[in-house]
Amino acid sequence: MASVEISGEKTAAPLLPPPRNGGSAVGDLVLRFLLFASCVAAVIVMVTGKQSELIPIPFPPFLVSRDAKFNHSPALIYFVAAVSVAGLYAAITTIVSFFVVLKPTSYIKLVSHLVIFDVLVLGIMAAATGAAGAVAYIGLKGNSHVQWRKICDIYDGFCKHIGSSVAVSLFGSVVLTLLIIISVRALSKRIPK
Amino acid sequence: MASVEISGEKTAAPLLPPPRNGGSAVGDLVLRFLLFASCVAAVIVMVTGKQSELIPIPFPPFLVSRDAKFNHSPALIYFVAAVSVAGLYAAITTIVSFFVVLKPTSYIKLVSHLVIFDVLVLGIMAAATGAAGAVAYIGLKGNSHVQWRKICDIYDGFCKHIGSSVAVSLFGSVVLTLLIIISVRALSKRIPK
Repeated sequence: MASVEISGEKTAAPLLPPPRNGGSAVGDLVLRFLLFASCVAAVIVMVTGKQSELIPIPFPPFLVSRDAKFNHSPALIYFVAAVSVAGLYAAITTIVSFFVVLKPTSYIKLVSHLVIFDVLVLGIMAAATGAAGAVAYIGLKGNSHVQWRKICDIYDGFCKHIGSSVAVSLFGSVVLTLLIIISVRALSKRIPK
Repeated sequence: MASVEISGEKTAAPLLPPPRNGGSAVGDLVLRFLLFASCVAAVIVMVTGKQSELIPIPFPPFLVSRDAKFNHSPALIYFVAAVSVAGLYAAITTIVSFFVVLKPTSYIKLVSHLVIFDVLVLGIMAAATGAAGAVAYIGLKGNSHVQWRKICDIYDGFCKHIGSSVAVSLFGSVVLTLLIIISVRALSKRIPK
């Protein structure tokens, strides 16, 4: 019978069910890679969404070229920064998670440390998705009460980029939420009744 | 010696340190009540932020009264809905947490169930804070690239309400994050090494 050392005396082992974390560790790895992929996709789609259009003006030369870029909006700059950070975090933790797949017994140890950072990154990423989504919605529909005109009738390609980027980032937030829920459930299961 | 029943045979107790969850349970109650209070405050401040101003127009009668209300912006409507839901959730869990303070041994059981919903509510609340913050920032600074003019020079009182509401909601999100981190740490500590 296995024995454990607690507070200096040898006592019987807790006899918990043996940790079968192989499946959970692989799930963790897959979700973290999905999160990484969606963060990278969201940032690339957002950054490449530059569009130039000729805008009519009331004086000569009557047409002027105007760009639409993500860095014209503070909310979209925050989005790119936040999702980049989340992507970097996802990349690092994917590598860590890969090593845990090779040694599944350390899965719980990993999870108990990472889940706290996962929660922080979720907060940052959800806020960024909300901010970019709010700006994108004003761009799409405008707001007649304060005369903010919609811009998506002119910058259609740019708006498609923003919309896709926000959608992918929302998907990433859902993946991260799922990851946290799975981690917490794994922790809860290991607690003796 | 206490004994536990695992998989049909009587075995020695795990001999974990006895659960001293009194302090954690009180902390949980206090944080949940703080979350509830900040959600209620955020919603009330946002909803009461109505302001009427006389706006000049180029034709008679040259001045017209225009309102600024939160329900003129879809992002602010989402904010009120999301923070109300978070407040309702906080109210219910504060009551549950109060009963756990009376019986601290059930703290871990409560935490392992609630932390999953806490994470979902955090996602909703962070996204709402981000969305309202993005709209508030456009209202404050405008955006010259797309000619969205700022409105806070006219609707100063309304803007103060929005800004305060977003700040309080951000505080609530931080409280909720803290609550999740404390819960996860409490779970991790109860796992046998």
